[in-house]
Amino acid sequence: MSLLSSRRIYTGRVLNLDLDAVRFPDGSVGELEMIRHQGASAVVPFTDDPRAPDPTVLMIRQFRHAADRYVWEIPAGRLDAGESPEACARRELEEEAGVTAEVLERLTTIYTTPGFTDERIHLFLATGLTAGTERRETDEFVEVHHLRWSQILESIEQGEIADGKTLIALLFVNTFRRRM
Amino acid sequence: MSLLSSRRIYTGRVLNLDLDAVRFPDGSVGELEMIRHQGASAVVPFTDDPRAPDPTVLMIRQFRHAADRYVWEIPAGRLDAGESPEACARRELEEEAGVTAEVLERLTTIYTTPGFTDERIHLFLATGLTAGTERRETDEFVEVHHLRWSQILESIEQGEIADGKTLIALLFVNTFRRRM
Repeated sequence: MSLLSSRRIYTGRVLNLDLDAVRFPDGSVGELEMIRHQGASAVVPFTDDPRAPDPTVLMIRQFRHAADRYVWEIPAGRLDAGESPEACARRELEEEAGVTAEVLERLTTIYTTPGFTDERIHLFLATGLTAGTERRETDEFVEVHHLRWSQILESIEQGEIADGKTLIALLFVNTFRRRM
Repeated sequence: MSLLSSRRIYTGRVLNLDLDAVRFPDGSVGELEMIRHQGASAVVPFTDDPRAPDPTVLMIRQFRHAADRYVWEIPAGRLDAGESPEACARRELEEEAGVTAEVLERLTTIYTTPGFTDERIHLFLATGLTAGTERRETDEFVEVHHLRWSQILESIEQGEIADGKTLIALLFVNTFRRRM
């Protein structure tokens, strides 16, 4: 698939919308709607050793207009221009959960929904937390909660945790960092 | 958070873009960019019993313009108007993987990236597969592969599987349907 031309339809604060003309593998030409996004980082902050029997994680709960309800998430946010994924994860950890991390370990990087956006989210695991200075952004209204790992797994199975990046980061940790 | 007004910026084939004026919990007013999407279904198709020692799953590999590369995914696609999530999962399973399923089990429903879109994806597990009639959509160029569960887990850990819905469905199955 090759890009023939791209037309910017909308330039926004969080995202841009392009209409891309592309040539498909069979030679035909079509148009794809593409949401361009600068990417984000998200982090699973453990207050205990992740391999402890039932460790505690800091999770946030915020009202999401897109979902029209409160959503459980891990601390996360968009990359600033020129910011590294790790620096973004550390900044969002302090802004949203009010903590700094001694150790930040990279888990993986995901495409949130590659059918229509190039958004990628870099996922991290944080340990060695220390209470820092909370600097909350004005359009975020987040509560910080301490959840036990057993509660988290039950909430995932019951469908009470529904945010994509959050599910991937938690299930990735459960599969590859707790059971080895 | 309450919606004050909504302005349609773009009406497309796959998505619409709205600018929503909202009142935040502190009384202030702001504008949010919202991608409206009709939602989708995705399905993990097992050719063996999911609890067998190393079962096989049908996975697809397709070039994604948004990612500018080939991406590993499970069969998935958008809901048609009025279509149930289960009917959509069965249709996409036949269109993309060329099989029908005797049993379709619901796993969970996710928000792909609730910061800017209302898109939800309904995840299913399929067993009892029978080869059907493949009816591939013209803008999809997908290869079907048989992957062993052990290969899948290794690919996830190595970051070779990066699609959000695919990671959640596979790790959900691994956590709650294989280890109980």
